[in-house]
Amino acid sequence: MAQTTPNHTMTVSGWAAHDPSGKITPHTFKRRENGMNDVTIKILYCGICHTDIHHVKNEWGITMYPVVPGHEIVGIITRVGNNVTNFKVGDRAGVGCMAATCLKCEYCKDGIENYCDQVQFVYNGIFWDGSITYGGYSEFFVADHRYVVRVPENLPMDAAAPLLCAGITVYAPMKDNNLIESPGKRIGIVGLGGLGHIAVKFGKAFGHHVTIISTSPNKEKEAKERLGADDFILSNNSEEMQAKKRTLDFILDTVSAQHSIGPTLELLKVNGTLVIVGAPEKPIDLPSFPLIFGKRVVKGSMIGSIKETQDMMDVCGKHNITCDIEIVSTDNINEALNRLVKNDVKYRFVLDIAGESSKV
Amino acid sequence: MAQTTPNHTMTVSGWAAHDPSGKITPHTFKRRENGMNDVTIKILYCGICHTDIHHVKNEWGITMYPVVPGHEIVGIITRVGNNVTNFKVGDRAGVGCMAATCLKCEYCKDGIENYCDQVQFVYNGIFWDGSITYGGYSEFFVADHRYVVRVPENLPMDAAAPLLCAGITVYAPMKDNNLIESPGKRIGIVGLGGLGHIAVKFGKAFGHHVTIISTSPNKEKEAKERLGADDFILSNNSEEMQAKKRTLDFILDTVSAQHSIGPTLELLKVNGTLVIVGAPEKPIDLPSFPLIFGKRVVKGSMIGSIKETQDMMDVCGKHNITCDIEIVSTDNINEALNRLVKNDVKYRFVLDIAGESSKV
Repeated sequence: MAQTTPNHTMTVSGWAAHDPSGKITPHTFKRRENGMNDVTIKILYCGICHTDIHHVKNEWGITMYPVVPGHEIVGIITRVGNNVTNFKVGDRAGVGCMAATCLKCEYCKDGIENYCDQVQFVYNGIFWDGSITYGGYSEFFVADHRYVVRVPENLPMDAAAPLLCAGITVYAPMKDNNLIESPGKRIGIVGLGGLGHIAVKFGKAFGHHVTIISTSPNKEKEAKERLGADDFILSNNSEEMQAKKRTLDFILDTVSAQHSIGPTLELLKVNGTLVIVGAPEKPIDLPSFPLIFGKRVVKGSMIGSIKETQDMMDVCGKHNITCDIEIVSTDNINEALNRLVKNDVKYRFVLDIAGESSKV
Repeated sequence: MAQTTPNHTMTVSGWAAHDPSGKITPHTFKRRENGMNDVTIKILYCGICHTDIHHVKNEWGITMYPVVPGHEIVGIITRVGNNVTNFKVGDRAGVGCMAATCLKCEYCKDGIENYCDQVQFVYNGIFWDGSITYGGYSEFFVADHRYVVRVPENLPMDAAAPLLCAGITVYAPMKDNNLIESPGKRIGIVGLGGLGHIAVKFGKAFGHHVTIISTSPNKEKEAKERLGADDFILSNNSEEMQAKKRTLDFILDTVSAQHSIGPTLELLKVNGTLVIVGAPEKPIDLPSFPLIFGKRVVKGSMIGSIKETQDMMDVCGKHNITCDIEIVSTDNINEALNRLVKNDVKYRFVLDIAGESSKV
């Protein structure tokens, strides 16, 4: 692997968890100096993703402490390396989940480097120089420019931050299934949380009939009135589910809790596609009959490539799409994480890293 | 529904199960007289499918006794109705799983009537006139001509019979996934039984690299030497599975026992497709990580349309593809069913309904 910057000499203030209690405390650490291919970003905002909780509590058993979470990073570029021609100091930049990929495999070469099996993430990953990566709960970030996107001028930085993970996670499968340029489809979104709410916005912006599929009856009003969803199906009401059989072209399943997708599959027309973007720890129950009798398709999708992420940012700029967020000060990270565990957020927490909001 | 022939006056000798003991005995019953849209077929051979066992033993809880099984039917046409122009007396004909569909829904109109949600099967189904359907374990069959295909002259009738279910079940997803006209793919077949062995033949005929994925080490020699498979992976050997990760473009899973498809999914390249054609009674375990991290696709597929079945027959004629069979006399149906339960058959039993084989 290329050793871009062996020297980690830049002192950065951030916030880290040091053990599985998951408590986040201020933490000063070292980053690499800005290398030939790097940009340094003064972080303004960083979204809080449920994945952050999995890592701070070591729920997947892979955490290397101390862990500095955060992969929905936006800020201003303060330094660029000599090889960097596509960014300049002062640019509005975003960094999502990826810190490095192999650059050599067929997937890297094909521009779908998010499926490189050497992919390393922006925190709790191993960078090319062998160092552990630290994420966006920190004041500065150093990123190889190949994993950085621009944030359109018309988007507010705070509400744009969650696009870097929640946004691209739902945008990429919509693009992959030809939903960007072919309006008029009937699409379903399972789960109305951080991912689901932005999926509704994309679905409506792209001209589709959007149905929210949820176990929470109290989300119906919100889904329709605030987010503009066209229909709502209470998924634990078998009569409602039965009445809507074979009506949807496409379903995006954003739920990360374990669940059976059999009843949901029945909502799809023949040859319809359900994409899973949530990652339940236990296997999903997949009954064969609804799959086989409807020739249905179940796909997985994980974030998106950098090219797709930039496309999404540009689309969001064009349609003025951002996330609905609650701003959190760095003093209240733990409270926000606790509320997130209870899904008590509409719809995404964003950390005000630089104290921008309090300055207003 | 159209009432083509209300009168069931034709006396037919056959073989039926009368209760969940599953024992098959000779049984005389009535079929409808040949109607305007019907052809009558003197049955020569009928394949034995595992589905027959599910029905004779009422394992799916839906059997209407007495049940005359059999949906891999070949024979000679002895009568044609006035509206039938595409068949004549003396033609070699085949009937598969379908007896009737609604003819009106979008799927019937699009020529994928096998996905019509009113589809009725050739036995244990309800025909348009309200009668229960009886299958091919019988001397004569009356079929609406829209559910009949021709058997190419160069194919032996006995070894062609299982093409009507086992054959089309594996052919349709191969066609649907562009494997007929684009050679050189790396495809895997999970399970080497009635479906799997014919899938290998199709795979090789279409110019692919074919890997058998099986839990039975003793099938390797057979798979490679007799059927021409290129590779063999022992699926319960984790080292072998690990070594073959991300190597296959397409996998056809023919196993009807409950199983996890996670390890199998890992064998697929990014964006690779696994098609499930077996129908385990319990849900399949679908772990989200191999699905998501490889952007993989899981599809269902159920038999094929009549048009696809005719296409397949013609392709089999062109490539001289038939099934490897064991001929069973009508005196030995029960023995064959018992052996089939133990998977003790290479690779499909075919009933010699008309006693053709003993005449030789």
